[in-house]
Amino acid sequence: MAVLTLLTDFGEQDVYVGVLKGVIAQIAPAVAVIDLTHGITDIPAASFALASAFPYFGLDTIHVAVVDPGVGSDRRAVAVQFRQGTVIAPDNGLVDRLLAEYPVLAAVHLDNPVYWLTASPSATFHGRDIFAPAAAHLAKGATLKELGTAIDPSSLVRLAERPGWYVQYIDRFGNLISNIPAGCWGDHQMILLKGQVIPSASHYGAVPVGAAIALIGSHGYLEIAINQGSAARYFDVGVGEPLTLHPLISS
Amino acid sequence: MAVLTLLTDFGEQDVYVGVLKGVIAQIAPAVAVIDLTHGITDIPAASFALASAFPYFGLDTIHVAVVDPGVGSDRRAVAVQFRQGTVIAPDNGLVDRLLAEYPVLAAVHLDNPVYWLTASPSATFHGRDIFAPAAAHLAKGATLKELGTAIDPSSLVRLAERPGWYVQYIDRFGNLISNIPAGCWGDHQMILLKGQVIPSASHYGAVPVGAAIALIGSHGYLEIAINQGSAARYFDVGVGEPLTLHPLISS
Amino acid sequence: MAVLTLLTDFGEQDVYVGVLKGVIAQIAPAVAVIDLTHGITDIPAASFALASAFPYFGLDTIHVAVVDPGVGSDRRAVAVQFRQGTVIAPDNGLVDRLLAEYPVLAAVHLDNPVYWLTASPSATFHGRDIFAPAAAHLAKGATLKELGTAIDPSSLVRLAERPGWYVQYIDRFGNLISNIPAGCWGDHQMILLKGQVIPSASHYGAVPVGAAIALIGSHGYLEIAINQGSAARYFDVGVGEPLTLHPLISS
Repeated sequence: MAVLTLLTDFGEQDVYVGVLKGVIAQIAPAVAVIDLTHGITDIPAASFALASAFPYFGLDTIHVAVVDPGVGSDRRAVAVQFRQGTVIAPDNGLVDRLLAEYPVLAAVHLDNPVYWLTASPSATFHGRDIFAPAAAHLAKGATLKELGTAIDPSSLVRLAERPGWYVQYIDRFGNLISNIPAGCWGDHQMILLKGQVIPSASHYGAVPVGAAIALIGSHGYLEIAINQGSAARYFDVGVGEPLTLHPLISS
Repeated sequence: MAVLTLLTDFGEQDVYVGVLKGVIAQIAPAVAVIDLTHGITDIPAASFALASAFPYFGLDTIHVAVVDPGVGSDRRAVAVQFRQGTVIAPDNGLVDRLLAEYPVLAAVHLDNPVYWLTASPSATFHGRDIFAPAAAHLAKGATLKELGTAIDPSSLVRLAERPGWYVQYIDRFGNLISNIPAGCWGDHQMILLKGQVIPSASHYGAVPVGAAIALIGSHGYLEIAINQGSAARYFDVGVGEPLTLHPLISS
Repeated sequence: MAVLTLLTDFGEQDVYVGVLKGVIAQIAPAVAVIDLTHGITDIPAASFALASAFPYFGLDTIHVAVVDPGVGSDRRAVAVQFRQGTVIAPDNGLVDRLLAEYPVLAAVHLDNPVYWLTASPSATFHGRDIFAPAAAHLAKGATLKELGTAIDPSSLVRLAERPGWYVQYIDRFGNLISNIPAGCWGDHQMILLKGQVIPSASHYGAVPVGAAIALIGSHGYLEIAINQGSAARYFDVGVGEPLTLHPLISS
C-alpha cells in the first residue's frame, strides 16, 4: 500500500498530529505514515520543504500538507497529482514549488463530502476533517475524480516570485540555503553576504570550526554555513536576506 | 492487529520514547504505534488531550498514557477498558476526562509481574518496565484479567472539579480552549475574557489578521483565538483563566 | 523484517528525518522505523543515548546514528555488528559506548557505492546518501560484507576517557545521570554535588516536591533529581560536573 506523508504546522505538543493518524488508521489501516515536519508555519518555507522531500519518495506516495491559516474560509482544499506523487493541501501556495518544478497530471477540488470525515467539518481543523480522510481514501484505492470536481491546474494559487538571489530557507542548524541552484555556481564566482565574501569549499570541515563556508548543499542549492555553528546567528540574517554573486577577481 | 498510542511527558530529546517502542516491538512486532504527544507535563492538560484524541481511534485501540510524577510510589498502574478503547496509565487522574465522558467496562490493577518487562521494575521508568509491556501484551492477545487484579472503577483517582467557565487548555498556536461546550453557546450570548467582549465568528479569517475571535473549535468547545496570532500571548493568560458568558445586550 | 532505529541531530523542524524515511521506504518498504531521538548534537551524549536504548531492541535491529559534524571529510562511514544489533554511523566516537560494553562481531567501511543512494553523494547529507540506504539494504538482506571493506574493530574511533565520577548525561527533566554504576553505590556511601550531600531514597516521591534526591535511575546509574523539578537548573550544572562518593560518616 502507498506511503502517506504529513507536513503540518501543528507542532509536537498537542494531539493534532496523532488525531490525523488515528483518522488515517481507521480508513486505511495498512498505510505507512511518515512525518516530514510539523514545525514550519510559513507557507513559502513549507512549500520549499515539501519540494525538498518530494523526490525521495515513491511514485505512489500521497503527501498531506496542512499549513492553513485560511482554514474555514472559502480557500479551496485540493489534490494535485504529479507523476511522482500526489499532494493533498489547502490551495494557498503550499504546492507552489512543486508546480514550478513538475508538470501536473490532474487536480481536483476536494468538494465531495463522501470522502470527508463528516458532512459538517469543523471551521478550524480541516486536516482532520477533510485532508487526512481524503488522503487515506486515496491510499485505499479511491480515484482522484471521486474525491471532487476537476479543476484547471493553472487556477492553483501561486506564491509571488521574488527577483534576485537571496536566502530562501534556514534550517535547524542555522544553514542559509540560497535560491542559487548548483548549476549557477562555479569556480569563477564568489558569493557575498552583507558585503562579505564567503570562502567556498567542498565540505564543512574544510574550514576551521567557527568559520564561514559556502558550498553546494543537499538541497541542490548554494548554502552558507558556519562549521559546527549557526550561520543565521553568526550573520544575524533571516529568510529573504539578499545575496550577491560576483565574478571572481583574478589578481 | 490493534493500534497502540503513546501520550507521555518524555519529550523528544531523550531516547525514552524510542525505548518504549523497542520494548513494544519485541513483544508485539506487528502492532502500529502512533504518538499522541510527548510534550504535556501537566496531568489535567494531559487528561484533556487524551480525551480529545480518543474518539478518533478505533475500538480496539490501546492508549498508553504516562505522565507520572508519582512513579515508584504506591500509586497504582492501571488498565481501564471503555467500549471505544483501553487506557493503560498511572492511577493519578490522567484518565479523569475519559471517566467523565464514557462508562467503564472493566478496570484492573497492573499487578501481574508476568506481563512486566522484568520482575524488578526500576523506580523511575514504569513506562518501559510496566505500562508499555502490558499494552503490548494486550495488543498481542492477553486479556485484561490476565494483566492484574480487577478493581472497582469508582476507586480510580479523579481530578478536582473546578466550578465555572475558564480556559482549560492552551494549544501550540496559543488558542485558548474553554470548558464551554458547543451546546452551551449560542447567538444570544457573548463571551468575556479579562472584561473584554470577544467577537464571535465562524472561522479565523472572518476577522482581520491580529484580531481576536471566539468560535467553536475542533475540540467541540468555545475557543478564543487571534487570527494568525497567539491569544495566550496577546491576552497574557494561562490555563485556569476565568471566562464569563453574558446574555447579549440588544440595543 | 528487521526494525531500524534512527538517532540523529537533524531536529524536528526540517524534512531531513522524513527524507531518510522516504529513502528507506523506497529500498525496504516493509521495515519498521523507530525514532530514538533527533535532538542530541553532542557526540558523547549521543553515544550514551544510543547505548542506553540498545538493549531494549531485538537482535536483528539496525541502528542508524548520524551526529556527523565531519560529514564530507575523510572520516569513515562504518557498520559495526554486535550480537544484539548492528550500528551504521560515522566513525567519530558515536559507537564508543557500545564498543566499551559489547564485543564486536564484525565491522566494515561503507565504501561500496552500489549500496549508496547515488554514486556521487552530497558533501553535507550522508544520512540520506550513505547511512540510510546502507541500513535499508542490510534490513532487506544484504550482508555486511557486501556493504564495504572489512576493517579492524580496534581501528574504530574512541572517545577520550575521563577519569573520576561526574555527570555524564542530563535528560529533558533535568535529571543528572552520573557515570556511577548501580553496583558501585551502596547504603554505606553518600554522594556530593558542589559540596552538598544529596539524600538518597528509592523513588522521586520519597522526598518533598522540590527537594533533591539521589537514586539508581532507569539507565542503571546513580541519578540526582529534584522531585517534580529540574536538578540541572536547581544546581546550575552541566554535563561533566564532578561528583564525589564518600563513605557514610556514622555518628
